[in-house]
Amino acid sequence: MSESLPEWAEKILARDPRAMARAISAVESGEPAGIELLKLLFLKSGRAYVVGVTGSPGAGKSTLVEKLAAQYRASGVPIGIIAVDPTSPFSGGAILGDRIRMQALSPDEGVYIRSMATRGHLGGLAPAVQDVVTILDAAGCALILVETVGVGQDEVEIARHADVTALLLVPGMGDDVQTFKAGVMEIADIYVVNKSDRPGAERVEQEVMAMLAMSQRRDDWNPPVLKTVATTGEGISDLREALERFRSFGERDARRLARRREQWRSRLLELLRQRLFETALGDLEDAALEACVEDVLAQRRDPHTVADKLISDFRKGKGVAGGR
Amino acid sequence: MSESLPEWAEKILARDPRAMARAISAVESGEPAGIELLKLLFLKSGRAYVVGVTGSPGAGKSTLVEKLAAQYRASGVPIGIIAVDPTSPFSGGAILGDRIRMQALSPDEGVYIRSMATRGHLGGLAPAVQDVVTILDAAGCALILVETVGVGQDEVEIARHADVTALLLVPGMGDDVQTFKAGVMEIADIYVVNKSDRPGAERVEQEVMAMLAMSQRRDDWNPPVLKTVATTGEGISDLREALERFRSFGERDARRLARRREQWRSRLLELLRQRLFETALGDLEDAALEACVEDVLAQRRDPHTVADKLISDFRKGKGVAGGR
Repeated sequence: MSESLPEWAEKILARDPRAMARAISAVESGEPAGIELLKLLFLKSGRAYVVGVTGSPGAGKSTLVEKLAAQYRASGVPIGIIAVDPTSPFSGGAILGDRIRMQALSPDEGVYIRSMATRGHLGGLAPAVQDVVTILDAAGCALILVETVGVGQDEVEIARHADVTALLLVPGMGDDVQTFKAGVMEIADIYVVNKSDRPGAERVEQEVMAMLAMSQRRDDWNPPVLKTVATTGEGISDLREALERFRSFGERDARRLARRREQWRSRLLELLRQRLFETALGDLEDAALEACVEDVLAQRRDPHTVADKLISDFRKGKGVAGGR
Repeated sequence: MSESLPEWAEKILARDPRAMARAISAVESGEPAGIELLKLLFLKSGRAYVVGVTGSPGAGKSTLVEKLAAQYRASGVPIGIIAVDPTSPFSGGAILGDRIRMQALSPDEGVYIRSMATRGHLGGLAPAVQDVVTILDAAGCALILVETVGVGQDEVEIARHADVTALLLVPGMGDDVQTFKAGVMEIADIYVVNKSDRPGAERVEQEVMAMLAMSQRRDDWNPPVLKTVATTGEGISDLREALERFRSFGERDARRLARRREQWRSRLLELLRQRLFETALGDLEDAALEACVEDVLAQRRDPHTVADKLISDFRKGKGVAGGR
């Protein structure tokens, strides 16, 4: 690119879709320019309301997110949608395919959609999701919907970094409720029984209520359990109303600040973990790594000793004396 | 403990269950003594056949693993079982509860069972599973069954580090096959349709066959699709036979060495990532971290700049001049 970083940043602040798409690609692939750009954009961000939407495959998340976005668009605010897909460990790619796409949901130009894979190229926990949020936020997206496909730990991590989390459940998937109990169930601020025109919707609702009666939140929010039929749009306005209620609750409640502090602490630590590793890998020559692998394979050295040595080399810098 | 590290290691080599249990606890909680112990034990390990058994909740993994262990025990070899549970992000504990238990499967003293949580205390990807394998291996367990509860990325990672991976499927959970396609499906060396006395077993078998017909392996192994009824023991001897067939296939095939090399490379990198982070955290004072969090929260500094500064401080050592 012939533009300077500040020029690039300016284009993003002006919501230029191509500049945004390039920024996201740069961040996703871990380019140094992407990180420098983020440093500029971060200071212009922080105004978006980030809504996490999670639930098992087939729960109707995409349809619900689309309907919710359309409803919010009626008020004219630019909206960002990030769809996070589980990654195949073999292909390394996202299931939904096209990861570079950034397009309008409809002819409407105020909606930016981005698919992302759960894992970065170095196996981190979707570290780039928060960075993409920062880009969309700086670009003026007042609402950012982060849709996570799946029920795993990664999705929980992503959801925990949203300002509010909605969990979608559907009737007739009793086993999933079981699975969710491993932790996903407890993280939601709003529960949505989607496809609620199907038999069993009441049972799911009651199960969630029973779970909520037993669990204890750190704040005074009382998570609502809503019913929707995303395909027809039924209940979407209730969901929007609940999201707005939670937003003003958050602005009043001091404990929400504590949640944000925790989110940034964990984000900062995750970033430290990832960048440390990337920096160390950058310093490590391929041949040196392969020699270590061969040593371990032949049981000449154990992996812990090898790792300790690599860390100590890293701290000393590339063959530079000094440090500790 | 009043014993020295070499004494502790000797007890483990002699298969003392209490010494083994203490070692596993030390490794799991990241105690330095545990790591020093591993360094000694690693050089005595490498003989076990590590079998990963994965599948969705309710697929009957525990029962199958128990029956398989009983069958292998008939030949007199000591056996280790590691049951990896998804962790609740809230409690931090394993669902199955008792993580410290190490007991005989039956009055038989040759079977060692251990439950572990997927995530370590620092959020790593079950880094300790491989370390527990090393302990059981050094203790002479000729067969180690690693049972992962769940279908997420973590379970895939764990399965990839086994010598052989068996994937359990059950009839009547069509949606799960869909979920598995995100990558878990492809990693197995042996497919097991458990509860095959239920309706739909043929359909699952055919789906797997169809998937296999489309996928391409790096080696010449032709993954079998077996049917079992774990509760009655039906098909367990076929499974054992397939496991043994895969083992001798692996000993003949040069590409299996390439797989082991890849496993150790990825294990070494994971260890480097984790230990780097732990070392950096150990150096970082709580107050300094909190000051960073406050800076980011107040948008005085962006998280990437903060992380870069922390890394540079880490490389210089705790206030020690020099390095780079």
